[in-house]
Amino acid sequence: MLRIVQVGLGPLGQRVVADLHARGLGEVVAAFDVASEFEGHTVGDLVPSTGSRVPVAKGFASLDSVGAVDAALVTTSSDLGVCARDLRELLRRGHTVVSSCEELCWPWLRHRALAEELDRLAKQHGGRLLGTGVNPGFLMDAFPLAATAISRTVRSVRVERWQDASIRRIPFQRKIGAGLDDRHFAEQVAAGTLRHVGLGESLHLLADRLGFAIERWSEDLAPIHATRDLDSSLGPIARGRVAGVHQVGRAFSEGREVLTLDFRAAVGLEHPHDRVVVDGEPPIDLVWKGGVPGDVATSAILLNAVGPLRAATPGLHTMATIPLFGCARGRSLAASASS
Amino acid sequence: MLRIVQVGLGPLGQRVVADLHARGLGEVVAAFDVASEFEGHTVGDLVPSTGSRVPVAKGFASLDSVGAVDAALVTTSSDLGVCARDLRELLRRGHTVVSSCEELCWPWLRHRALAEELDRLAKQHGGRLLGTGVNPGFLMDAFPLAATAISRTVRSVRVERWQDASIRRIPFQRKIGAGLDDRHFAEQVAAGTLRHVGLGESLHLLADRLGFAIERWSEDLAPIHATRDLDSSLGPIARGRVAGVHQVGRAFSEGREVLTLDFRAAVGLEHPHDRVVVDGEPPIDLVWKGGVPGDVATSAILLNAVGPLRAATPGLHTMATIPLFGCARGRSLAASASS
Repeated sequence: MLRIVQVGLGPLGQRVVADLHARGLGEVVAAFDVASEFEGHTVGDLVPSTGSRVPVAKGFASLDSVGAVDAALVTTSSDLGVCARDLRELLRRGHTVVSSCEELCWPWLRHRALAEELDRLAKQHGGRLLGTGVNPGFLMDAFPLAATAISRTVRSVRVERWQDASIRRIPFQRKIGAGLDDRHFAEQVAAGTLRHVGLGESLHLLADRLGFAIERWSEDLAPIHATRDLDSSLGPIARGRVAGVHQVGRAFSEGREVLTLDFRAAVGLEHPHDRVVVDGEPPIDLVWKGGVPGDVATSAILLNAVGPLRAATPGLHTMATIPLFGCARGRSLAASASS
Repeated sequence: MLRIVQVGLGPLGQRVVADLHARGLGEVVAAFDVASEFEGHTVGDLVPSTGSRVPVAKGFASLDSVGAVDAALVTTSSDLGVCARDLRELLRRGHTVVSSCEELCWPWLRHRALAEELDRLAKQHGGRLLGTGVNPGFLMDAFPLAATAISRTVRSVRVERWQDASIRRIPFQRKIGAGLDDRHFAEQVAAGTLRHVGLGESLHLLADRLGFAIERWSEDLAPIHATRDLDSSLGPIARGRVAGVHQVGRAFSEGREVLTLDFRAAVGLEHPHDRVVVDGEPPIDLVWKGGVPGDVATSAILLNAVGPLRAATPGLHTMATIPLFGCARGRSLAASASS
């Protein structure tokens, strides 16, 4: 049983805590969130299935009195800069830290100095740090990379993640601009609130491990319009309004496009799937039929990554520096837990 | 550039050496094979594309005078017992050793004492040892395991590897019994010459990493009959004769079948593919369209595994204890090479 420190109790954090208990992997021994609305509450108040009486605290003052800790899970922000203070506090205590922070999947891209600082801090105190998730962290980087383990040559890689947002949570539908008109869509894009974070990180992880020196790269974003009247959890979406988002990340090396990440998420999107296509020897065309649902999978991979990260040497890691892993069960985790 | 010791210069070994050079990953600095037919020959005689003048030697006498070595590749036998002497010699010298030996993919299954000895030897001398390949080593074990990184629960896993043997080498067609009648097929099965080695190893790697305690397991083998007259590199195969082989590995845990590996290789087999189906949350149905060709892929993964194995701690490894990796290029290997 893993003794887990949970930092961040928003929708994802709550799901992680619920899964931790339901899967029999461990229990929360300390919980933190800066939101005032959680003040005075316990983990069990937020996630009744856990029955946990651990209080949700604002600062880390109580962290040193919880006894043995196997890992900390940080589900607070996509922005590594925002997470930095918490990560420092945890690494300074030598903890093993898995975070859903998208920018942490390849932190050298947007936060090189901070990445080097966190790496030093981890090594100095025997801690470990990993950013992961379903995307970035797996479907558009670690997974296509792993598929090319059987490749003699890779000329280019194309990854598609096409999601039907009809079945996703309302916050997700809002995040992809469902229901907006083009003007409001453009405003939100300009404000930076309407985008999937991580294509750049995935491009750089893939390029680094496949040995492509990136000469230039881009991230484009466009609306996907409803081609018919649609229903959504947000209400009806009239034909012509925004149904979702289409983002494409491209990396160029050796004068040509070597990596293409095609992300689409829209209400009513047809033929949802995840797919990896490799132009190389042998050619690869690998399809996840129906695609991988993001909500379940993100919580799952954060918990599944704890064991292999604990088996790695201290420092800042990526999905390509820790051992290949699968679904964890109580039994397979036992060997790596301190208690 | 990796400096490689090649042990075994049969068809696979020759292919590995050719790919090592053609891919710009490195060069052979010493080569060994016990076959008398290679006596007095150079690597370049066997693999002209390399232009190598390195002699093919029978014993390891010359091994200590070749200077720095980055890794040794052993492509001699499916039987770990047969490989043991060479592996000991290499590990005693502290080498990093990647082998296509099928039984080495999970050596504790059929050679527990030897596995423990090799692990001790590697740790004592700073060497590393890994058995890998496309199957076992990847398609029916490491890859399905990696797919479940996004799984909340795994109730059972089914892997299919269905190959059309029409396009494979003659030795492969012979190995699967193509053209035999049922009596000769049964004789060869009884003699142990006609089977794919590795389903048991893949079952145990998967079970161990997914946390299933295997209560019992089985490997079944049956002929696939030609349902029409077929052509093959071995000559015509009449309707009713053996076209290939169907092997199924099953592992049972918690009173039910939790792992099923379905391997088919036959001349004229329709709808060839590789596939992973996971009954769990989320359900997974992952298909490699057209399947992965074994010849290219086996050589590729042996070479691709060198870098990540060099990054691992000394000892006996499996595909689930070294970092996740993809296709290696000269550039991505540079960091891990000694020269």
